[in-house]
Formats: sequence, C-alpha cells, structure tokens
Amino acid sequence: MANEGIERCRKSFPFWEKLTNEERELLERNVSVVKYSKGENIHSGGTSCKGIMIIKSGSLRTYLLSEGGREVTLYRLYNGDVCVLSASCVLDYITFDVFVDAEEDSEVVIIGASAFQAVMNSNIYVECYAYKMIAESFSNVMWAVQQILFMSFDRRLANFLYEEMKKTGSDTVSLTHEQVAKYMGSAREVVTRMLKYFVNEGIVELSRGGIKIIDMHKLKRLL
Amino acid sequence: MANEGIERCRKSFPFWEKLTNEERELLERNVSVVKYSKGENIHSGGTSCKGIMIIKSGSLRTYLLSEGGREVTLYRLYNGDVCVLSASCVLDYITFDVFVDAEEDSEVVIIGASAFQAVMNSNIYVECYAYKMIAESFSNVMWAVQQILFMSFDRRLANFLYEEMKKTGSDTVSLTHEQVAKYMGSAREVVTRMLKYFVNEGIVELSRGGIKIIDMHKLKRLL
Repeated sequence: MANEGIERCRKSFPFWEKLTNEERELLERNVSVVKYSKGENIHSGGTSCKGIMIIKSGSLRTYLLSEGGREVTLYRLYNGDVCVLSASCVLDYITFDVFVDAEEDSEVVIIGASAFQAVMNSNIYVECYAYKMIAESFSNVMWAVQQILFMSFDRRLANFLYEEMKKTGSDTVSLTHEQVAKYMGSAREVVTRMLKYFVNEGIVELSRGGIKIIDMHKLKRLL
Repeated sequence: MANEGIERCRKSFPFWEKLTNEERELLERNVSVVKYSKGENIHSGGTSCKGIMIIKSGSLRTYLLSEGGREVTLYRLYNGDVCVLSASCVLDYITFDVFVDAEEDSEVVIIGASAFQAVMNSNIYVECYAYKMIAESFSNVMWAVQQILFMSFDRRLANFLYEEMKKTGSDTVSLTHEQVAKYMGSAREVVTRMLKYFVNEGIVELSRGGIKIIDMHKLKRLL
C-alpha cells in the first residue's frame, strides 16, 4: 500500500525530482494510503491537519460550515486531484478553515503534515508547489462564490442538476431535496419550490428515487 | 519618482535580494509610481493587467462584479499592502477576475506585468512570493465570503445599533465595544472587527463617545 502511495506521489508531484535524497526519504516514510467511507469527515477546519492529499478513487467535497451548522459547498475533488487545504495548518498565509468529506467511498494518498512542512521549509520548489495549488483552490472557490452571489436560483439549480448528470452518467439525480439544498448552500424549501417549477415547465419529474431530467434541451436553456 | 518606487520595492519585496543583477535591472526599468483619483478604476478583471502593486498612500477596494452590474466588496488595501491580483494575467493558476478601484486619492508603485512575468519565470523566489501573496488574498476573501454567506453577525450588529438609535433618539450609540458585546452575548474582538468593517463601508464612525451612525440608508440595508 505505501509503495503504491509513493509511486502516486512521484507521478503527481512535479517537485519530486527536485528533492534531495534525505527529503525524499522523509516524505516516503510519511506516505499512507487511507480509505474513507461515503459521508465520512476527512478534515475539519482548525481542529485537524491531515497533510497534503492525492485522490486515488471516489470523490471528496470541500465546504464551509457556519456556526449555525449551515454548509456551503466550495468544490469537489476527483481521481488525480490534489488537496492542499487539508494541510492549511502548515501554510502560514491560510487563515480560514474548510471542511472535507468523502462523498463516495474514497481512497486517498496522504503525506503527513509535519513531514510535508519540514520539506517545504527546506525546499523552495515544494513550498512554491503548495502555494500554486492554493491558487488553484482559490480559483475553484471563486467560481462557486460567484455562482452563489450572482446567479439566480433557477440557473444555479439547473447547473447543479446538469453537473450531477454529467458526473454520474444517469438522467436521474438520486438525491433528496434536503441533500441538494445542503450541497447548494440553500434551504430545502427553496429547492422544493424551484423543483416544482421545473416539473411544471416539463424539465424534470420527481419520484422517490430522485429527480429525473426529462427534457435536456429545456434544462440546457437555463444554464 | 521612479527612484522612490525602486526604494519601496526593495523594502517591500523579500525576493529583492535573491535577484540577479539582470533581473533587478529589468524590474527597475519597469517600476512606476502612479496617482489615482478617488473613485477611479485601476484594474478591470480580464481586460487589463497592470502588474504587481504596492500601495504608497490612500486606499484601494477589490471587488467582484456581476454581469448585471452588482458589486461585492472583497477586501481593501492600505499603505504598505501588496496587490498581486492586479497581475493575475501572468499567474497561470488564477482564472477569475476581480476589479480594483481607488477608494481615496491614492499613490501606487507598480511593476509592469510583463517584466514581472519574465522575472517570475527565471526566479523561483519571485514566483513563490507571488503565490504566497495570492494565498493571503484568498484568506482575506474567505473572511468576506463567510460574512456574506452566513450573514449572521453583521445583521445582528446592525439590528442592535438600529434598535439603540430608536430607543435613545440619538444617532450616536454611547456604549463601549465591551458593552455592545455583552448586550449581544458576543466577544469584544468580534464586535470590534465588525465595527471596523462598518467603518470601512461608511456606515459608522467610531469615537471616544461611542458609535455614530453616519449612513442610515446603508445600515437599514443590512437589517
């Protein structure tokens, strides 16, 4: 398992070839491959600091959590993506907290935070890589923020359903209204009301199993 | 003027001492000191690319702009702060657009984008610095985003000030931050930070005597 993880690091991290033997050995000793079950919390803001992660399989969801328990999804990570906000404790310029959950059963390669920090301090290429990944996260987050702040809710919901369809390859989105609301940072009532509107427009059908898109053309017109 | 700008760069940029003579000369040839009038636009998303800036005096406001013309303030920059999102065109990992306006008459030291890019490509310390400043912006933005999305405390504080005003019939709330915090069941630091935010938004003025509401219209918009 660890060997597999090291192999993955070698392929994913462009800084790997810039490491000294010592640095490489330190990182390799702190590589692990971890399985998470669907729904499991992986990283909780300030209270945990897993380290830098590569997603091997499944998918992770990053989100903000309000004091009142409201969640706002920021972005998702899939096979091959790198998560660096889960090492935010060792990145001086990151002063906010995000949460990361497994959205499906997932497998993740992790380099522990303190080993990563040590190598980041000794090797500028590693530090530079980490902050570039932060900039990539920043761009992902800003996309979501603009969606939330500026888009009308019908467009946002249409986008959400369309993205879910593309992800799963099914014309049925198997989520409850409650779950859709949670992922979109909205309230269940708001989602239900808009879905009823979509039903009336002949865009979707609602069933116990979820939300079935019956007119792709109409859905796409909303995007 | 240019010499003054170069002196400022030398003091503000920790990478300055890591530059080769050639790199330093290239940057120095592309330093300028520019004045902006209150309200003037400095940077407009994808259509302009000023370069990296140091604020010498005055203040700048960074914001998002929707297609419909709605603005959302992200953060402000003051004397000594560095603005790197105004060089986002030369930062591969930044894919979103922000806008920057002068909020007062301001003076800014600018290193032109293409010279900065050339040196960033040849010198890892410069590249690393730019992405660290991006991470700092990210943290600033996330503070604002959480305020906006979770909208709890600013609304509560606005409500509190409004109720106090009605009660006393005065536009000044004669309470210390400590007292406000106590009445609201919050912490003094939280109240102070939010009041500073209100000051920046032009809603209140702070003095020894208390908190003076200077823009009732803006306050009411928060209720």
